[in-house]
Amino acid sequence: MLIDRLNWRYATKKMDPSRAVPEEAVERILEAARLAPTSSGLQPFEIIVVTNPETRAQLRAAAYDQAQITDGSHVLVFAAWDNYTDARIDAVVEQMGAERGGVSEALTAYYDRLKGMYLPRTAEENYHHAARQAYIAFSAAVTAAAFEEVDATPMEGFDADRVDEILGLRARGLRSVTLLPLGYRDASGDWLLGQKKVRRPLDSLVTRVA
Amino acid sequence: MLIDRLNWRYATKKMDPSRAVPEEAVERILEAARLAPTSSGLQPFEIIVVTNPETRAQLRAAAYDQAQITDGSHVLVFAAWDNYTDARIDAVVEQMGAERGGVSEALTAYYDRLKGMYLPRTAEENYHHAARQAYIAFSAAVTAAAFEEVDATPMEGFDADRVDEILGLRARGLRSVTLLPLGYRDASGDWLLGQKKVRRPLDSLVTRVA
Repeated sequence: MLIDRLNWRYATKKMDPSRAVPEEAVERILEAARLAPTSSGLQPFEIIVVTNPETRAQLRAAAYDQAQITDGSHVLVFAAWDNYTDARIDAVVEQMGAERGGVSEALTAYYDRLKGMYLPRTAEENYHHAARQAYIAFSAAVTAAAFEEVDATPMEGFDADRVDEILGLRARGLRSVTLLPLGYRDASGDWLLGQKKVRRPLDSLVTRVA
Repeated sequence: MLIDRLNWRYATKKMDPSRAVPEEAVERILEAARLAPTSSGLQPFEIIVVTNPETRAQLRAAAYDQAQITDGSHVLVFAAWDNYTDARIDAVVEQMGAERGGVSEALTAYYDRLKGMYLPRTAEENYHHAARQAYIAFSAAVTAAAFEEVDATPMEGFDADRVDEILGLRARGLRSVTLLPLGYRDASGDWLLGQKKVRRPLDSLVTRVA
């Protein structure tokens, strides 16, 4: 079932501008991203959902003019925290306490240890760590789109500084890491659709230590 | 369906050492990881499947003694390429050409541009990029395990240098980024199982630009 969906999806190159993805489908895709696991449950990222046509035109210009950004109906921008801070980690502890019957000593001790590891690191190092967590959610969103029979194009090819500028991300302590335009394939106009999906064979990707 | 599976899964803390995951389920989990999309189709990582008990005991010692590594039956180690090289990218182009009817000029030009961007960068920068791709596959494996009703514990808390040493990864141009023990929950022994899944509410995670 999952394998079928992963085989169905592909990095759609041409989307049909006349079809919009229903909001309910977008909500389920976001919910999958929200449920994705992250290191110590920090979820150190945000997702910006862009439907505004002018903003999408700007994003397209910042992304080598990739047409899916405006031909689709939604663009999800995954933006990682630019750093870990006391306040950001405290908010996680507070929510966890609130939803699990109180902030226990063990919970506080766990996140104090985490702060002891993360806060002395450089912002760049913490951003890299946060970005990896955003990729876990990003991957879940790609899979979720396939379950919705919504086409999606995972994108890293864009000028992150410009995207941050367009969306005002840096002021919010965020840095864009990936884009995910959502829409529906234009079957007659997409050169990639007829092509075989190419993946490394399992024996080149996997080693066994038995 | 996907949402249900993501709600079912959790970062299993105690696995039942008497139950092994069937190989067919492990194969489907690996297949999901193999099918996950990556930047320019590079798949810049490998997955080491460790079942050997002595090796798993060593991994456990390198991972803060987390018992799932030996209580489960399999550990997947996701290891990213330590750098991009001409040869590694050429192998991707060659496979793509072989499976899609020849190496076209456009294909060569695309990956020549990619080399022009990646090869001048530092190994560290390329490793960070490769690691993010490994996280996409890692996330797909986590989801796939949930579809198999196999428990899995996403792990970043380990000494990567020691894991690299145990598995001889550096000599193969690889660096470990995540572990994923697979097994079955010990329902009576797992303190986390009864706990509510805590995630940031959608309105704190998602912003709309409409």
